[in-house]
This record gives sequence, C-alpha cells and structure tokens, in this order.
Amino acid sequence: MKYSTIPSSQTVVYHCKARGIKNIVISPGSRNAPLTIGFTEDPFFKCFSIVDERCAAFFALGIAQQLREPVVILCTSGSALLNYYPAISEAFYSDIPLVVISADRPPYKVDVGDGQTIRQENVFENHIAYGANLKLDVSHATDKIRKYDALSLMGTDVGIAQQAVQEFNDTALDNALNLAWSQNSPVHINVPFEEPLYDVVTETTLIPMVNFVRDNQQELDLGKLKESVEVWNGSERKIILVGVNFPNSVEQKYLEQLAMDPSVIVLTECTSNLHHHNFFPSIDSIIAPIEKSPEKEMLFKQLQPDIVLTFGGLIVSKKIKAFLREYSPKFHWHIDPQKAPNTFFSLTHHFQTDPNRFFEKLLQVSSGIQSDYQQYWTRFKNEYIARREQYLKEIPFSDMLAFYRIMGSIPKDYQLQLGNSATVRYGQLFDLDQCINVFCNRGTSGIDGSTSTAIGAALYSEQPTLLVTGDLSFLYDSNGLWNKYIRPDFRIIVINNGGGGIFRILPGKDKTDNFENFFETTHQIDLALIAKAYSFDFMSVADEGALGAVLDDFYAKSNCPKILEIKTPRLLNDKILLSYFDFISYNSK
Amino acid sequence: MKYSTIPSSQTVVYHCKARGIKNIVISPGSRNAPLTIGFTEDPFFKCFSIVDERCAAFFALGIAQQLREPVVILCTSGSALLNYYPAISEAFYSDIPLVVISADRPPYKVDVGDGQTIRQENVFENHIAYGANLKLDVSHATDKIRKYDALSLMGTDVGIAQQAVQEFNDTALDNALNLAWSQNSPVHINVPFEEPLYDVVTETTLIPMVNFVRDNQQELDLGKLKESVEVWNGSERKIILVGVNFPNSVEQKYLEQLAMDPSVIVLTECTSNLHHHNFFPSIDSIIAPIEKSPEKEMLFKQLQPDIVLTFGGLIVSKKIKAFLREYSPKFHWHIDPQKAPNTFFSLTHHFQTDPNRFFEKLLQVSSGIQSDYQQYWTRFKNEYIARREQYLKEIPFSDMLAFYRIMGSIPKDYQLQLGNSATVRYGQLFDLDQCINVFCNRGTSGIDGSTSTAIGAALYSEQPTLLVTGDLSFLYDSNGLWNKYIRPDFRIIVINNGGGGIFRILPGKDKTDNFENFFETTHQIDLALIAKAYSFDFMSVADEGALGAVLDDFYAKSNCPKILEIKTPRLLNDKILLSYFDFISYNSK
Repeated sequence: MKYSTIPSSQTVVYHCKARGIKNIVISPGSRNAPLTIGFTEDPFFKCFSIVDERCAAFFALGIAQQLREPVVILCTSGSALLNYYPAISEAFYSDIPLVVISADRPPYKVDVGDGQTIRQENVFENHIAYGANLKLDVSHATDKIRKYDALSLMGTDVGIAQQAVQEFNDTALDNALNLAWSQNSPVHINVPFEEPLYDVVTETTLIPMVNFVRDNQQELDLGKLKESVEVWNGSERKIILVGVNFPNSVEQKYLEQLAMDPSVIVLTECTSNLHHHNFFPSIDSIIAPIEKSPEKEMLFKQLQPDIVLTFGGLIVSKKIKAFLREYSPKFHWHIDPQKAPNTFFSLTHHFQTDPNRFFEKLLQVSSGIQSDYQQYWTRFKNEYIARREQYLKEIPFSDMLAFYRIMGSIPKDYQLQLGNSATVRYGQLFDLDQCINVFCNRGTSGIDGSTSTAIGAALYSEQPTLLVTGDLSFLYDSNGLWNKYIRPDFRIIVINNGGGGIFRILPGKDKTDNFENFFETTHQIDLALIAKAYSFDFMSVADEGALGAVLDDFYAKSNCPKILEIKTPRLLNDKILLSYFDFISYNSK
Repeated sequence: MKYSTIPSSQTVVYHCKARGIKNIVISPGSRNAPLTIGFTEDPFFKCFSIVDERCAAFFALGIAQQLREPVVILCTSGSALLNYYPAISEAFYSDIPLVVISADRPPYKVDVGDGQTIRQENVFENHIAYGANLKLDVSHATDKIRKYDALSLMGTDVGIAQQAVQEFNDTALDNALNLAWSQNSPVHINVPFEEPLYDVVTETTLIPMVNFVRDNQQELDLGKLKESVEVWNGSERKIILVGVNFPNSVEQKYLEQLAMDPSVIVLTECTSNLHHHNFFPSIDSIIAPIEKSPEKEMLFKQLQPDIVLTFGGLIVSKKIKAFLREYSPKFHWHIDPQKAPNTFFSLTHHFQTDPNRFFEKLLQVSSGIQSDYQQYWTRFKNEYIARREQYLKEIPFSDMLAFYRIMGSIPKDYQLQLGNSATVRYGQLFDLDQCINVFCNRGTSGIDGSTSTAIGAALYSEQPTLLVTGDLSFLYDSNGLWNKYIRPDFRIIVINNGGGGIFRILPGKDKTDNFENFFETTHQIDLALIAKAYSFDFMSVADEGALGAVLDDFYAKSNCPKILEIKTPRLLNDKILLSYFDFISYNSK
C-alpha cells in the first residue's frame, strides 16, 4: 500500500480509519494530493470524485443523512472550500456529521500573494462544532520553511518539535472527529501542507494516538421527569409536534400509546416519518380553516395546548409556529440528545435524551385523563379530508393536482427526497404511504443542493430513490447531475412552473411591478437538454392524462436514471392553492 | 415611486444611491423583498436578476472589475448568502468592491428553529473589510417582537429607541460603503427584517444621514523616496515585476523610460496589461531554461536583482516566485495604495501610493547607471522566441498549439477573460496584441466563477468579450450561462481536453493509480447540449485546419452568443508542454 510521506496526511487518514469513517468525497486539487493519495490508496475507504465542491458537499450530506455516520469531504486550498459552505450550514442545522477537510498552504504563505490561498482557519466558525487547525509538520519542512513559519519552534530540536506537532494534531483530530460522531455536527479540519505533495512510501512512518469517544448519551433527569409526569397526567390538551425525524427511529408501541390517548394530538409533517390514523398529518389543513373562521379566536383558544412536546429537527409549517407563538402553551418540552431550539418562545424544559428513552419512562407512569381534545379535532380533520377530496375532483391540472397524483403513485418502499420550498409544502398536503421514507434539507431550507443530496442519499439505499423538486431548485443544482455515482434506478420529477412559483403564493405579488423578473424569476430553459447532457432519460408531460400514462414507464427498471418533467400552468397554480384553503374553510365551524 | 415601509430598507437604498452605487444584482427571495422593492422601483439603479447566488456574485464581480466601482449583490436569508463566499474571497484578494447585502431574520429568530435562518452576522469575517450588522427597526416592529429582541431597548420610548437604531445603521453603512469605495474591498451589510415584508409607501418616510468619504490616497513619503532614489541610482540590476494590473492605468511615458533603462528588466504577465518590446512578457520561458541548465546556479546569480520593484495584484508565474524566494533581492519595494504582500519574504518598503505618482517622483530624480543587465537577458529572450517559433512549427495539434492559434487570432480591441488555471498559464506563453485587455480571477485563482465573471465584465464594455476557459472550469460554472444579460457578441472558447489537464503537468501524475479519477477527473459531457440549453450557438473543432476555418465565423456578428469548443488530445498535451521547456533549453547557455 502507498502512503503520503507527510506525517499529518498519514495522521488524518489514520484517525478517520480508526473511527470507521469510510466514505470520502474528494474534489480534485494539488494541495490536497497527500490526503487524496492517502484515502484512495487504502481499500478501507470508499472514495468518490466530484469536481464542483458545492455538489460534492451536498452529495456527502446525502450519504451521511442516510448512514447516520460521519462522511468526509476533501478539497484543495483557496476558494474551493468556500463552495462547501451551503452544505455545511445545512448539516449544522440538520445535525448531520459532515467532516470537512481542507488542504492549506503553510501559515507563512497566507496573505503573501501565493495562488489559491485564503484565510482558511476558522472560516466556517459560525456553523461547525469544532475547527481543528492542524499544524505543519516540522520534520517534513525544510529549514528554509521553518525559518518563515511561526510554528517552527526555532532553535528547538526538530524531533522534539515534531513530537509537539504530532500531539497537537492528534488532540485536535480527537476533538473534531469525536464531536462529529457524538453530536452529529459538522466539523472542519484544516491541514497545511508544504511541497513536495506527491511523494509516497510503502510503509507508514508513524502511529498516531487516537482517543475515540463517541457516546454522548445523557442520562435522563428522573427528578425532572417525575415532576413532569404530574403535569402530563393533569393536562387535558397535549400537542406532540414532530419535526424532521429519521424513519423508524421511534418505537411503534410508544406511537400507538400516544395515538390512543384522547388528550393527545400528534401533529406530523411528511418529514416526520411517523404514521398512525389518529395522527394529524396535514397541519396547515387544520390551521388554515381556523384562520379564516369568524370564530377564529375561540377556536384557537380551544386548540391551545397545555403542553407542547416536540422532538425531531426543523418544522416546515409556518402556521403551527405562528399559532403556538401567539397561543403559548404553559409547557414546552423538547426531547433531543443535544439541542432544544426555543421555537415558540415558551420552552420550559429540555429533556436531553432520545425520544425512545423518554417515552419509555414517561409512558410507564402516565395515567389517562379524560379529554375530548383529540376527538374534537378529529372531526375537523375528517372534514378537511372530505372537502379536499371534493376539491381535487374539481380543479384543473396544476401544481396541486400534480403533487396529489405523484404522492399517490409512488411505488411502495421508495425513498422520497423533496426539494425546497414549494415542493415540501405541497408534499405536506397529501397522505403518503407509510412505507415511503421522506427526506428534505430543512436545516436551512435552501434550494441549493437538493439534487446532489438526493443522489448521495440514494447511494447506499436498499430501495430506489425519487427526488421531487421544482424547476428553479433543479436548475440551481444542475451540476448535481455531473456525477458518476448515480444509480440507474434514481428518478427525478421536476415540477416545472417556469419560475419560482412560491413567490406567487406569498402576499407581495401584486405590490410590485417587477414581480416576474425579480421574485418569480421566470425562465424558458429546455430541461430535456440538461437531462441529455448528463445522460438521463427524459420525459415531459403537461396534463393529467399524460402524467397518468407515463408513470409506469417512468418507474420501470432502466439502464440509466430518468427525469420526468411536469409542466404546470404558471399563472394558475397560486390561485388553485390559495382557493384550496378557502374551500376547506367553506363551512365555518 | 414606491418605497418599502421599513426604515432600514429605505436607509440602505438611500446610502447606496447617495454614493452613486448603481448596479444591483439581485437573487430572488422573500426576506429581501423590502430591498428588492427599494432598488427595483428606483430608476436610478440598474438591477439584474440572477437565481444562483454563486453566479450572481461572480457576475457582479465582473461588473465591478470593469467599472472599478462598488456593485451590490443582494439575497435572502439562509444558505443563499453562503453561495456568495467564493466570489467574496476573490474580490478580497483582487481588491474589487463587492457590496454584499443579505436580508436576515431579526436576531431573536436565529437558532430557534425558524426556516432559512443561519448565523449571518460576521459570517464572511475572514474576507471582508467591514461587516455592518444593521439593527432591526424598533418603530417597525410590533410590541410582541420587541419583547423578544435584545435590541429592543425595552422600557425606552419607541421614538428615541428608533432614533438610536437609525444612527447606528447610518454609521455602520458609512463605515462599510466608504471602505468599499476607498479601499476597493468587499464589505458585508446584514439587514434584519420583520414581516410584513411587502408593504410600500409612495413617499420616503425618513432622510438618512450620509457621511460619504471615498478618497484614501496616501501622500508619498518623500524622505523614504529620497533615500530610495540613492539605492535605485546605485543599483545595476533592477527587476520590475507587475502582477494583475488594470489596462492603461500606468502612463506610457513612465513605461518608456523604464523600458530604456539598461539596468532594468520589466517582467510582465498577460494580466499585467503592459507592453513594450523591451519588456519580458513570458517569465517562465526565461526561468525554465535556467532551471534546466548545468550552469543553473551561476545564471540565477546573474539574474538575481539588487532591487525588485512590484506593483499590481497577484503574480501567476510560480517560477519567478520560487526564484526570488531563493535568490533574495537586497530590496523589495511594493507600490500600492493599500497593501504590500511580502511575496518573496524580503519586502523592505511599502510605498503607499499608486504607480503613476511613484514613478513621477522617482523618474524625475533617477540618473542612469551603466549596466548590461537588460541587454544580457534580452539575448536569452530572443533565443527562446526563436526556439519557440521553431517548436510551434513541429508540434501536433494540442493545448499548446490551440492557445497559440487563439492568442494570435483574437480580433483587435477585444477584451480577453481567461479561466484558471491551465488557461492563464498557457496564455502567458504567447504574445498578445497590445490592444487586447486581459483579465483573470487571480485573487484566489479559482475555477469556480470564470464564466459568470466574464459575462458581467462584458456588460458595460465598449468592445466585445472573449472568454477562454478549460472544460472543467466551464462545466463548474455552467450556471453562469443561466443569465438574461449575455451580450450577443459574447464569445467563449472552451479548450476541452476531457478533464483537468493541468494535473498531467504536475509532478505527481505517475505516482498514483487513481490519477484519472481523483486528479484529472475525466468526463464525457457533450458541451453542445449545455450550450443549446442556454441558447448559445455552438461549434466544435478538433484539429488545426478546422480551427483555422471556423474562426472568422466564430467572431462574426450574430444574434446570440457563441461557444467554440476545441478538443485537444488529453494524453498528449502535457508531453508537448513539458517538452517545450526542454526544447527552449536545448543549448545550455
């Protein structure tokens, strides 16, 4: 086997391997050659090559999202690594352990006019759990280099100095990589290298010290729990609201018990990946009719919970956030091993554990309380379901109808990846088969990397993956298709309404003359050509009949991945969506 | 006219207008609606709409590069602004005044689980001259909002609090925008907005206080100059080395005088935009033969200067940097109004002024000294020119020959934009007509935004623009073509060698089995489809005859922009380039 001659390259590779970090997404460069060599020459690692660093990072994010383990992105020095930043921020807010490794020039060559050199140390500070700024190997550097380097420990014996560097680097790598494992946080490791960069040896020249700690599970605070159980048992109105949640991560027996509790309403989103017929899966279809009701205030007061219990990541529905901010619960408890965002400005306790451990303890000692809370709101749910069915029969082909048809026709056991932001919002309106696992980049809700994320997520999945996305999001990440690792069963549906359709739904659309140009940003790009350039099969439909007719073929086995474009009427979509909320509100309750 | 109701939106727009900042590149979003409305409704501004923020920022960079004045990029909250970062770092190192304006949520909504919300304040800290974190308008916020906001000055009178906010924001904008003008640095203005975002009024509701200071010219230190003149006059070997330099920015009379001084060698690069038959325009063709000579050390000692005088931005040639680091000059003076990178680790003085003022004073009092320095090295120059001519007659079609043909055939008065990194290096090898102005993103030397930059740079140019770029760089920035403002006379030549050809030239290529995949990153994407998707005319050639035959047509007037692909032999290019340096070194001197 071959190893870079540079000690810090061997050290980084060793630390990753010792922690079982297998997947390495590499963007080409020269400065990172010592690490590219180190990772690619060792068959332990599964290495991927992606040129555009923005796509590479989202692709790695998709892998890490699915495997729930750290994935490395590796690039050269300069602006290259800045292209990682959108995916890093997504990882930061979605608790995905992206391990960013950037090669750098030695510190003495920063800001002196060397090429491809920027201030890399701590450059992602705002959105990483830890920044490890490794030190340049003294042993590898020439005297000339040491002369200029502040880290050279001039006058000291080179052997002793190198040992200090090695200890520093080992500790910094421990800190960074342990956090990636234990907190699912992105971390940044910056590694300065001096030339020569391509020299190799056939035996490692050092054995780094690895202190691998990955478990960070907190013990549940039983005192607090006991106190909380009393509150729980005494409350007639409890909302459980679930954000982005990994499929099958909460045990079904707890879900059953919660679903059968008459004092509990479980509000889910498509990204919650939780299903029960007693749950409330389309939050906005409950809230919107209340907003439009003449008895709005009374109804909201009836819905106002005593307790809100939350777990999972970010919540899509703006309406539920607005409601709970206005009608504050007495108690807001959040369950999560790491963080507790105060989403409704009424957080009262953070249970630092995972939902299973929490529910195990809570439900052991919870006693029922008489309540008609769930039953009362189930009537509202049944009503919107009936009216939705009626509405969908009446409307013409549009974004809404297209989503309805798509959601109802996805083959079982597909993994579904949703783009932002209209896409995931439409996705929320319809019921999905519970076999279908749903993912979406909701950490920052960007349109910038959905395609790359989905392609990465598809990689290790037993099932095929479908990405549903909008035209702007698809075009934004068109470089995501420049990827050699796309599975032939990968599918993309692009809802093409010729621009950013979501802006038509927002309140401002009539108030500015420049709307089409600066908000909706219409375009006329032929997606078929993009698809063909990147070797995708392509089909396009523009009405309900055609859509129904192609779906079987679209999902059928094939030798290359496929894109289905669904063209919808740009000027009609917003009216149909907004009228939907009017329609289900027709009978004021 | 319409104005946003939000005071800080009116304030930002007013400050830009008061400083004559006209060009505003907007990416769509809702949070930035108050500013989008403010800028687009005022006919003073020239607004552009570009969806992909990475491209938008490079496009703005191109405009600012040409106009040499601040250009605004405006986007919504969340990961959107992080896509600006590659262009910001380029602007930082190329002294281009990019004014980054990001809309934000109010501070109390950061890190609480709101959508599209990240830690925006100071996020570009490493690579901007100033970060203005504006405060939320108290007057515009509701009591409910003020309750949560640390900036609310609770208990104080709203009018007084708002006045404090206004003063803070005015000062922060003064600081940021004055620096953009006076130091040509990128700055970041982060503006928190609370809903409603789309409300407008027909009259402004406030008059901000603007303190516009833009001149930052330092007086030349005449004492230091006097001392330096003595050194200058006593030195027989002086090198003037010019980095990236704006065309026609140094007066011809000074250039003439320097060119005729026998003790002076003026080393230029294609990005120096300086021409004289006594200058040395292909640095590597001088240095490489010395490196290969058996008398290397003696020759380098003969070339070693007493003084190196530098001005302009970054230097492309690695060989000259390596030489001057090893053979240090006694004096290194750098002329620049702002900064002086210590590129050769031997900087002795920074003359804080522009080259014209410096040369005016210096050349008034400089006396000639007898020297054969220029004459001696001119023989070397003439020799490589003769041998280069011979070599070009012998080689087959390749990157090198393609560049030679391109450089020799660009119509006069074209603006030439070069991609990184092989492109600009090949460009250095050949002489260009002095009417052709050359630009390249050498601040960070990234491949990430050359196309967008060139499209922006073309916008206000009297002449047509040609971008020459490589296939990886072209594909990386393919979204750059998703742009409604491309001039029909815009031209792109893509040298397509099927991957990152530069990696074949680097020393490591034989040392790793994974070379093609992880370094060269070969691909087979059909560029014709990409061109067509974005409404470019497209032509492709693969040999010298075909290239010669299409050039007239390629440059001919047309209704839409054109791309010319030149396919070159991937496995041959590196050998031809490397052999060139052997060939011109044939007679050891």
